[in-house]
Amino acid sequence: MRPLPVVILKEPQLAENIGAVARVMANFGLADLRLVSPRDGWPQPRAWASASGADWPLDGAKVFARLEDAVAGLRLLLATTARPRETELPVFSPREAAAHLREGAEQGWPTGLLFGGERAGLETNDVALSQGIVTAPVDERFRSLNLAQAVAICAYEWRVAESAAPPANFLPSAPPADQAAMIGLYEHLEGELDAAGFFHPPEKRPSMVRNLRVALSRARMTDQEVRTFRGVITALSKGRGRVLAKLAAKRGDG
Amino acid sequence: MRPLPVVILKEPQLAENIGAVARVMANFGLADLRLVSPRDGWPQPRAWASASGADWPLDGAKVFARLEDAVAGLRLLLATTARPRETELPVFSPREAAAHLREGAEQGWPTGLLFGGERAGLETNDVALSQGIVTAPVDERFRSLNLAQAVAICAYEWRVAESAAPPANFLPSAPPADQAAMIGLYEHLEGELDAAGFFHPPEKRPSMVRNLRVALSRARMTDQEVRTFRGVITALSKGRGRVLAKLAAKRGDG
Repeated sequence: MRPLPVVILKEPQLAENIGAVARVMANFGLADLRLVSPRDGWPQPRAWASASGADWPLDGAKVFARLEDAVAGLRLLLATTARPRETELPVFSPREAAAHLREGAEQGWPTGLLFGGERAGLETNDVALSQGIVTAPVDERFRSLNLAQAVAICAYEWRVAESAAPPANFLPSAPPADQAAMIGLYEHLEGELDAAGFFHPPEKRPSMVRNLRVALSRARMTDQEVRTFRGVITALSKGRGRVLAKLAAKRGDG
Repeated sequence: MRPLPVVILKEPQLAENIGAVARVMANFGLADLRLVSPRDGWPQPRAWASASGADWPLDGAKVFARLEDAVAGLRLLLATTARPRETELPVFSPREAAAHLREGAEQGWPTGLLFGGERAGLETNDVALSQGIVTAPVDERFRSLNLAQAVAICAYEWRVAESAAPPANFLPSAPPADQAAMIGLYEHLEGELDAAGFFHPPEKRPSMVRNLRVALSRARMTDQEVRTFRGVITALSKGRGRVLAKLAAKRGDG
């Protein structure tokens, strides 16, 4: 089994944010949380309250007094920061960072993502413990990314890198209709529109037919949908026949 | 100037989450926020408190009573949901969704991302107004993504797509119709089908309406096509009235 990236929060301030980090870790399949000197101590019930049931990263969280101890055992550590640094470390986007973490995991390396506290972020000395900087492409006019949002984007990218495929139950189930069924739908509609005098002037009929067919073709209907729309056409146009028959019957009576 | 995607929150519950959404919108360069029936009313000072200075999406937020009004003016609407739906809409990852939004923006289309409230998410009827579903690759064991986190991931992917935009080519020239025009088409069709007695038994009407809307939504009609199909509906159903009038006239003559 490949090791999952560890999430390390250095001096987080708000228990609510630690809980929000746990929740988004659970969303994207991460579980191992390490806290370095949380400002208000640990454990804190408000963290569990804001995790919305994602308790296991909090239950298993390890607390350290020093960052050096929290990162011990890791073989690849990436540090997130929104500010440029006076270091010669490589700078990665969250997507590039995810690729590096995945490559490390494939080698069996324990890996980690390091995040600073809400107010101060990471010091350059903290960043210097890492093998690379991760920075999200934030807008220059508002760079301050919430702690849990920063974790969310890194965890999301890690998960995308791990498995690009969408969950199987989201794949469309019904195949598109047979072209013959679509043509049957077109001809049914066009026949009723001919009867209704829709295509005028007559020389424009070919282009009008083509435009209707193109729009319906783009819908990529299933067989069931083709049947439904044929029912719609029948329901809309059959009324004429019913009214005719009813009036004819009345005339016959009268 | 290319339009930025609009963020639409349907029935958001917590002002803190609305503020967190505004903050992450600002992080990734989005600004246009629309609120549909926020549970606790609007404006709410706690939203500004949790936006950490990203006030402008909140200051400019527009409030609507109905989702239909909130999406009016948009030409591409994508709905985020973590649950599979009984619809035949295409399903996109956040990355694919960002590519579609970017392509739309290159054509000058107003686009939008729709998010449901914290507890209930979107109803299937809401999803049926969209042209596609966006779903993040969450872990099956903990699917519940915080509202602001969901916005964060979509907004992040949009920004990544923007900053790495290849030139557009071979894109269709006519923009998709305004959502208000699509809703007008649906209601026209459904009104005529009501008159024709199409929806039976009556308890199946909601799901039948939804299935019709989804199939037509997928066609991504242009404004011209919407007008054409409204003409089709009128031609098919108006016949009844014409036949009636003609027969009535004949009866008067006879």
